[in-house]
Amino acid sequence: MGSEEKIISWVCRFTVITAFFLIGFIIGWFARPTTVNHEQASKSLLRNFLDEMQAENIKHHLRKFTKLPHLAGSQQNLDLAEQIRAEWMEFGLDSVELVPYDVLLSYPNETNPNYISIVDQMGNEIFNTSLAEPVPEGYEDVADIVPPYSAFSAKGQPEDELVYVNYGRTEDFFKLERELGINCTGKIVIARYGKIFRGNKVKNAMLAGAKGIVLFSDPADYCADGVEPYPHGWNLPGGGAQRGNVLNLNGAGDPLTPGYPAKEYTYRSSLEDAVGLPKIPVHPIGYHDAVHLLQHMGGPLPPNNWKGALNVSYRIGPGFMDGFNQNKVRMNIHTNNQVTRIYNVIGWIRGAAEPDRYVILGGHRDAWVFGGIDPVSGAAVVHENVRAAGKLMKKGWRPRRTLVFASWDAEEFGLLGSTEWAEDNARVLQERAVAYINADSAIEGMYTLRVDCTPSLHTLVYDITKKVSSPEEGEEGMTLYQSWHKRDNSTERDAPWISKLGSGSDFEAYFIRLGIASGRARYTKNRKTERYSSYPVYHSVYETYEIVERFYDPSFRRLEAVARVRGGLIFSLADSPVLPLDCVEYAMSLTKYANTIYQLAAKHPGAMGQYSVSFDSLFSAAKNFTVAAQDFHQRLDQLDTSNALAVRMVNDQLMYLERAFIDPLGLPGRPFYRHIIFAPSSHNKYAGESFPGIYDALFDIENAVDAQKAWDEVKRQISIAAFTVNAAAETLKPVVS
Amino acid sequence: MGSEEKIISWVCRFTVITAFFLIGFIIGWFARPTTVNHEQASKSLLRNFLDEMQAENIKHHLRKFTKLPHLAGSQQNLDLAEQIRAEWMEFGLDSVELVPYDVLLSYPNETNPNYISIVDQMGNEIFNTSLAEPVPEGYEDVADIVPPYSAFSAKGQPEDELVYVNYGRTEDFFKLERELGINCTGKIVIARYGKIFRGNKVKNAMLAGAKGIVLFSDPADYCADGVEPYPHGWNLPGGGAQRGNVLNLNGAGDPLTPGYPAKEYTYRSSLEDAVGLPKIPVHPIGYHDAVHLLQHMGGPLPPNNWKGALNVSYRIGPGFMDGFNQNKVRMNIHTNNQVTRIYNVIGWIRGAAEPDRYVILGGHRDAWVFGGIDPVSGAAVVHENVRAAGKLMKKGWRPRRTLVFASWDAEEFGLLGSTEWAEDNARVLQERAVAYINADSAIEGMYTLRVDCTPSLHTLVYDITKKVSSPEEGEEGMTLYQSWHKRDNSTERDAPWISKLGSGSDFEAYFIRLGIASGRARYTKNRKTERYSSYPVYHSVYETYEIVERFYDPSFRRLEAVARVRGGLIFSLADSPVLPLDCVEYAMSLTKYANTIYQLAAKHPGAMGQYSVSFDSLFSAAKNFTVAAQDFHQRLDQLDTSNALAVRMVNDQLMYLERAFIDPLGLPGRPFYRHIIFAPSSHNKYAGESFPGIYDALFDIENAVDAQKAWDEVKRQISIAAFTVNAAAETLKPVVS
Repeated sequence: MGSEEKIISWVCRFTVITAFFLIGFIIGWFARPTTVNHEQASKSLLRNFLDEMQAENIKHHLRKFTKLPHLAGSQQNLDLAEQIRAEWMEFGLDSVELVPYDVLLSYPNETNPNYISIVDQMGNEIFNTSLAEPVPEGYEDVADIVPPYSAFSAKGQPEDELVYVNYGRTEDFFKLERELGINCTGKIVIARYGKIFRGNKVKNAMLAGAKGIVLFSDPADYCADGVEPYPHGWNLPGGGAQRGNVLNLNGAGDPLTPGYPAKEYTYRSSLEDAVGLPKIPVHPIGYHDAVHLLQHMGGPLPPNNWKGALNVSYRIGPGFMDGFNQNKVRMNIHTNNQVTRIYNVIGWIRGAAEPDRYVILGGHRDAWVFGGIDPVSGAAVVHENVRAAGKLMKKGWRPRRTLVFASWDAEEFGLLGSTEWAEDNARVLQERAVAYINADSAIEGMYTLRVDCTPSLHTLVYDITKKVSSPEEGEEGMTLYQSWHKRDNSTERDAPWISKLGSGSDFEAYFIRLGIASGRARYTKNRKTERYSSYPVYHSVYETYEIVERFYDPSFRRLEAVARVRGGLIFSLADSPVLPLDCVEYAMSLTKYANTIYQLAAKHPGAMGQYSVSFDSLFSAAKNFTVAAQDFHQRLDQLDTSNALAVRMVNDQLMYLERAFIDPLGLPGRPFYRHIIFAPSSHNKYAGESFPGIYDALFDIENAVDAQKAWDEVKRQISIAAFTVNAAAETLKPVVS
Repeated sequence: MGSEEKIISWVCRFTVITAFFLIGFIIGWFARPTTVNHEQASKSLLRNFLDEMQAENIKHHLRKFTKLPHLAGSQQNLDLAEQIRAEWMEFGLDSVELVPYDVLLSYPNETNPNYISIVDQMGNEIFNTSLAEPVPEGYEDVADIVPPYSAFSAKGQPEDELVYVNYGRTEDFFKLERELGINCTGKIVIARYGKIFRGNKVKNAMLAGAKGIVLFSDPADYCADGVEPYPHGWNLPGGGAQRGNVLNLNGAGDPLTPGYPAKEYTYRSSLEDAVGLPKIPVHPIGYHDAVHLLQHMGGPLPPNNWKGALNVSYRIGPGFMDGFNQNKVRMNIHTNNQVTRIYNVIGWIRGAAEPDRYVILGGHRDAWVFGGIDPVSGAAVVHENVRAAGKLMKKGWRPRRTLVFASWDAEEFGLLGSTEWAEDNARVLQERAVAYINADSAIEGMYTLRVDCTPSLHTLVYDITKKVSSPEEGEEGMTLYQSWHKRDNSTERDAPWISKLGSGSDFEAYFIRLGIASGRARYTKNRKTERYSSYPVYHSVYETYEIVERFYDPSFRRLEAVARVRGGLIFSLADSPVLPLDCVEYAMSLTKYANTIYQLAAKHPGAMGQYSVSFDSLFSAAKNFTVAAQDFHQRLDQLDTSNALAVRMVNDQLMYLERAFIDPLGLPGRPFYRHIIFAPSSHNKYAGESFPGIYDALFDIENAVDAQKAWDEVKRQISIAAFTVNAAAETLKPVVS
């Protein structure tokens, strides 16, 4: 080749090389995804995560955490907090901290015990209720078992005739006052536990003018048929009694620092100005003691359906005890309120891609005594969730979003630890919290799964339960979803029953005050056939490790299943590129709730016409929301998941949907209940009410003193609900008009 | 070459080509930025944007928009809304919509005019105030000029002695009641305009028990020295009077729908339950009329510094007019409240990268009459801002974030249009709004720039004013910053003076209720030497195009400068990859405010000791915030701006900082004022107060009935302030513990 040819040849080669370089460059440029879509990766990791959680470990955690009482504010409960911090760090969390608050707690006076007496005309105490529960075998040497008491009871020694008020519900007092003509003013009332939160019973008693209230456990409500009392079965023994706080906080947290965290520098109101403290003495007793009080009552016979299972021919008072004997009842209550330091344990796994998005798993650690069920069956499950997450991290996994694990303190004293932390971190949580999964007691029965959650979590709950095996014997190869579906089908569609969230556990501040999508899951009884309240030994000394190990879950596979459901929820929420929240489910629920509340109002067709009450705006809003939700999910199907900002934007819309239902003005008279769609019932904190503002405005409206004013308030509440639903729909629409 | 050699040769070539392909691929892979950092692009585009805004255009817009009155609720103001919508669409916005609300407005009765009389003992009206202002030349044929009135005045014809209450400030009534021993109960009071918002004067009069209040413009407050009355100068003529609403809404918006947008379906309270309506008649008069009322008053002589410039030897009553003549004053007020449809115009430019982040420029369109200054000097500037943005869009530009332009209605009736829209969109704004820039009157004087803004905007304001030329003659080559700095240096540092935001314009709901970083800018008088209130013709018929064109800004270069400042702010906020907000400036301001409020409390050293009042927690919080802010900006310096999610995360922290100061519980008695750092003064809506909760708790505390309770409230407010500042600091820390 000549030199010219050589040059041409090299030029050709250079051109070819350059061309290939360019092709390579271009392919390289465009082949690179701007973000990693680890949906596939997540799926197999979810499997690993679920399988990592094992019954044996949960059993071990439960055993370890139930040896001693862990009353809020006690040294034992601080020790347990330290232990949990240390173990969570060992499991591999990025950081774990103890977060203290100084809140108002309430303890019996150690030298001056609480009890109830029957006193004769001479003032002699002729019968006294027991000062403690008989301690179960194996725990005889345990110190610091707090006797049954009603936390935050007022002090006092009121003495008077006794009036039986059935469950102490609003409708029970209505019946007494309106139908039976019995006035409770100045009397001591006695109510059986069950049906509603005990704080509501106390509030109702105060409203009725009572000067004291005795709470007792009736076998009709605390014994299952054909079951022996503990330790031979899981029924409540006659000497057992239910501890519990009797506050009416309505979400305020620490009674002395409503709205603000109870830090050292925080201003504290006086006890007189405290939120939710009962003004009258309250005390709980078991049924062996209750018999004595009840069988000597005066007054007329109770309605048939007010008779419990005590088989005593008690009356409903007032009227002196034993008729002409003129005996009375005296309460002797010396319980003290005191500001006490509590400790939350907060653990963190930093999110890999979006550290500023938080998925929270929280449950309480404090127990009335051993807490075998409440809360340790839940806390043991949290411990296993944390251990499993740590295990995956050691294999190199890190969730897309941040995981926060919380062991709350002082739940039993009014959800204090969780509420103070929510108050402390309200700004950050409002901006960053994706979801809150609650982890209180993981088991309360032996039948099937129970889930209460926000509607947007329905679909994820179903998905996760399809990935978990049924823990029931004889259901090998069946999924938890199938087992659950078979046992508790929804009345509305062919899917397992999921309920609204009420309150009575630590999700309250997160869901009802801050508007963070929330849910809870546990194993439960057959709600259709098992009519006893809660589980029989609830809040008694008989909540031991053994009651779980012998009766509720001998294989610990039920707790394992619950661990996998809760764990699967937080895993998916933290790791899915697009948040697994379903707005169309929310739309369906809103439509259903609108119908329900309309039906309630429609019981007053005359007044509806007279005062021009219309639900059109609410139905129209529900329709707007439905269309917006459907359109949103259609757009989501076309989302370019490789565009990190685009994914973030739809995730923000999903995350903030629940927030959109929050009204900073709160519900009437309940400033910390700010969710317009859901609130704890005003008549039973445990139950959830939908469209609570409208519901409360309609309540007992037929007896309103000023009907015009009462129906105006109904109209105002319909307007607020309609606006809120419309406003939430707006958040789902395309982000620019 | 043999076939073997050929193969080797081809293998070699293939290897080389593959290698180059790979090199190309790898370079291509890594060379690609994951997001475009258009900081450089933005800078030159900002220059283009600023230069696009021109004096001549603003002059044209001002002329066009001031030909007719545009009272809220009138057909003319709807027509103007339609015109603005059409022109904004022409300018190139993506979409523009009219958003209606049905709010409570207030108009004089057309057939039964309002006036004040002097009546003799026989009940004869021996003097009546004028029913209208003399109409300025050129506007004689204009219909629908509303006469001077106090919007939302109660109806009524009270008749009694007159008491002069100076400016009607809290301290004026204190002086009357406590030092001068004059009781206003059951009297008609007369107050001069100025110093504070007129609604506060009316509230004070009601609290003092007055049954009516007359408001007048004194030349001491509404005439500048050496200036002629309009049309020969820019002073208020004697026949001119100041219109204005006399509400005390405290941020509620529409008085009938507090907290919720006034839509068709919205529940409306009765007028009796409406928020902020005065319960007594109110009426404004000019100084020609005022002379007659004042010169016949009875009672003692006023304090020297209460004497205005009317040069009448009036007294301060009560005491019958003319001493022994026993003449009285009668108010004749027939103004009607009525629910009326108003229209906001809302225009959108969709953000290119982050459409779900909103930068809002809003100002009102409604005017009492022609609105030459208020608001059209501002609205004309908005129009030019929109035109310039449209121009850039036609050249291919689109901001990183969404721009929202708003022409509010019914600002003059209590910030109604802007507040209803804020209520309507509260959820979306809370999640997505980056900043709100207000665009009311762009000029109120001829001296220099005036800026009120949140501390985090200080730095950006300084930066932008350095890019704008001084509009002043003889200052060619000087920047606006230099001109401003020279004329109005801060007392605290070597930089121009920037003030806190008060209220009295449409930013209120955005800043004080929702916690969106806000600011405003306008051209102003020399605040040190020009002691008249506002600008003399404020809210009179003499606010014409001509007053601007002849006196305030003949070259329209001052308005051009304001347009560039406002425009530069929204451009930078919408287009900078990292939000141009400065947390360290906020820290400095918080520290300063903490010192100021401490100094106020420290005037009571005895009580501070007695009631153990400490500001330590607040100082400590300010320090925490300062450290957090400094650390935040240090981390910002190391931010990988090519990581789209990382940038979004710090921007979220910056955006939500202002939100962190919002307390949903609001300030005591003012539920819609929710910003813990800033609120309109409780004694003057126009002024901003820092740490308003503490300030109000301390106010007049030396005269508190229950000192313990009063100081407890101070302590509670210090605690709330300290917590809020600490909570805000938390939002700036790294997002994971």
